[in-house]
Amino acid sequence: MDARTTHALAAETLTAEGEVGIVTPQRIAFPEGIDLTCGQRLAPLEAVYETYGTLAPDQSNVILLCHALSGGAHAAGRHHPDDRKPGWWDLYIGPGKALDTNRFYIICINALASPYGTTSPLSIDPSSGQPYHLNFPPIKVTDWVELERIVLDALGIQRIYAVVGGSTGGMRAFEWAVRYPERVQKALVIAAPARSSPMVIALNHIQRQTILMGLEYGGVEGAERGLMLARMLAHISYLSEPALWSKFGRDTVPEAEFWSVTYQVESYLEYKGSTFLQRFDPFCYLYITRAMDNFDLGYTYGEGDLRRALMRVQARMRFVSFTSDWLFPPAGQQEAVEILQSLGKPADHVVIDSPWGHDSFLVERVKPQLKPVIKEFLEE
Amino acid sequence: MDARTTHALAAETLTAEGEVGIVTPQRIAFPEGIDLTCGQRLAPLEAVYETYGTLAPDQSNVILLCHALSGGAHAAGRHHPDDRKPGWWDLYIGPGKALDTNRFYIICINALASPYGTTSPLSIDPSSGQPYHLNFPPIKVTDWVELERIVLDALGIQRIYAVVGGSTGGMRAFEWAVRYPERVQKALVIAAPARSSPMVIALNHIQRQTILMGLEYGGVEGAERGLMLARMLAHISYLSEPALWSKFGRDTVPEAEFWSVTYQVESYLEYKGSTFLQRFDPFCYLYITRAMDNFDLGYTYGEGDLRRALMRVQARMRFVSFTSDWLFPPAGQQEAVEILQSLGKPADHVVIDSPWGHDSFLVERVKPQLKPVIKEFLEE
Repeated sequence: MDARTTHALAAETLTAEGEVGIVTPQRIAFPEGIDLTCGQRLAPLEAVYETYGTLAPDQSNVILLCHALSGGAHAAGRHHPDDRKPGWWDLYIGPGKALDTNRFYIICINALASPYGTTSPLSIDPSSGQPYHLNFPPIKVTDWVELERIVLDALGIQRIYAVVGGSTGGMRAFEWAVRYPERVQKALVIAAPARSSPMVIALNHIQRQTILMGLEYGGVEGAERGLMLARMLAHISYLSEPALWSKFGRDTVPEAEFWSVTYQVESYLEYKGSTFLQRFDPFCYLYITRAMDNFDLGYTYGEGDLRRALMRVQARMRFVSFTSDWLFPPAGQQEAVEILQSLGKPADHVVIDSPWGHDSFLVERVKPQLKPVIKEFLEE
Repeated sequence: MDARTTHALAAETLTAEGEVGIVTPQRIAFPEGIDLTCGQRLAPLEAVYETYGTLAPDQSNVILLCHALSGGAHAAGRHHPDDRKPGWWDLYIGPGKALDTNRFYIICINALASPYGTTSPLSIDPSSGQPYHLNFPPIKVTDWVELERIVLDALGIQRIYAVVGGSTGGMRAFEWAVRYPERVQKALVIAAPARSSPMVIALNHIQRQTILMGLEYGGVEGAERGLMLARMLAHISYLSEPALWSKFGRDTVPEAEFWSVTYQVESYLEYKGSTFLQRFDPFCYLYITRAMDNFDLGYTYGEGDLRRALMRVQARMRFVSFTSDWLFPPAGQQEAVEILQSLGKPADHVVIDSPWGHDSFLVERVKPQLKPVIKEFLEE
């Protein structure tokens, strides 16, 4: 592997940073909808997005930021002064931050089928007057990209300086570079490969079947308990064994219950599951995980040949991986980088030594390593 | 790490091997039962065991073999000539095999709470006349060892030449060496550490909660679907990402169903889940996984200090790990070996380079590497 490590880069200092402050989500409607990859037309359609920074008059400073499975358009700042938490990537978005709002105009669009405002299985199906739920059409990562494209088109933005995303957001960033090569100048793909592995499919299958079992036996309440369990499993897959040792070890809880919670790690998982239930939806989860499974750029753009698909790329690309990520291990990204390099494309791979697993790009402790890797790439 | 690799050992040839042939399970009753670590007395008690080879007149050739979570006493040979499959470790038990029945007398005892004949949650609770189910008392690995001890006592066997086990069987082998140091001459611990990690606890928690959710919403049928899903998750944890790529890649099935099975790996998991359901029980699964979680030799024998616990060991010990085992990674075994070595105990660690994950010790392709590691240890 010619992957670079971050030791050389980590020396860069974290310069003074500011906050984006109060932000207001925008809503955009497409009454005609879009044609999905499954052949169905989804209409009407709405999308929610947020922007940070100021669009340059020549539109040369656009960063399209793609959120992950459980994220949304709210990437930075707060909606209200008393919001307990800022947006999901506030660590990296703002004046002086990795995505520097003094220079860049950042737009983050909530993905199709996500429960955070864009049309989803929770939206009203015009043919029934009821929420779509399982009548929502199947979607793929390509449909996510198409939704982002029509939003940008509607805003009159043709050229993207950089598309940036992690996890399923990294899938979208990667697909943008392949699908619309002439529109993307740089693409930064964090913790996402060119195709989902059978391990990802297997983990997602169990999560979906748990939700569907709950739905079958317990209706919506059962589906919600299923979603909690699915999230617990997903959460484990975002962490690593060393991270679990470090956070919980074998510590027990004060009032152990034999069949529910005896150990701290169990208590933590139940807590994570229940907070997720407050903010997510089982039907959306089913659709989004299936979109992940079906992600395969070689299949979609190269008739099964990833090399052929990647010949389309024109963007300068950087891939970032984390050593302890067992959901999307560095080897998957390295495969893509080596193909790009062998095609003479400008692409590199930065492997960050982190014990925090797949979620490292969201973990504050990793920021000193990750920030310079992003900032250097965006500003060079 | 001073762990040895198998390259030097693998040159040993696989000599001519024979089969143990038809075997008959034995049954032994303990009407008075035993006192469990939880303080309850479990009575009456029955245990099922099998033996292979011939007991030496001086009883110097006894190998106690400890099965894993889903195994039983039937480790080798067949019960009937037309059995489709032999016992679970037939690869390694027989004339000329790693556990050579020309030399050794091997005994394998079905563990407490396992559904294969020994007293379990499926047995009749004398206080109700109904199966115990969730009224079965909590058990620990220590109770498994105690059941094995009373069986050996009843058979008049005091001294064990070698105790051998993998996974939860490895936990028992390790605990034997700590609990009864004067009775164990050698202990071979395969893919098992001195304590379960929070990753193991987390995975087991999700599996148990899935079974319990099924039970709550769908009764026994729901618990059984829950068991299928639990097994699928466990099965993933026994494999590795490279193994899944190699076996399934992203292959799809001919008649895909969007919400059930689209990919081969999903079909495989459903198949594995349904065959497991034919041969296992959700209640037994709950108890056995909780026993795994609670395994911690430092806690049980050293007041939290593993070093203090391991001072008890007198046996010559060998630990075997597999590079791709992410359920019980080699680092866990290495920790134990280094403590034993620092105490001047004869212990070594063989790390086998295998892509087949935790289950490598059951995989035929790993036999050329594993057989000499076992045979050398047992025959030296």
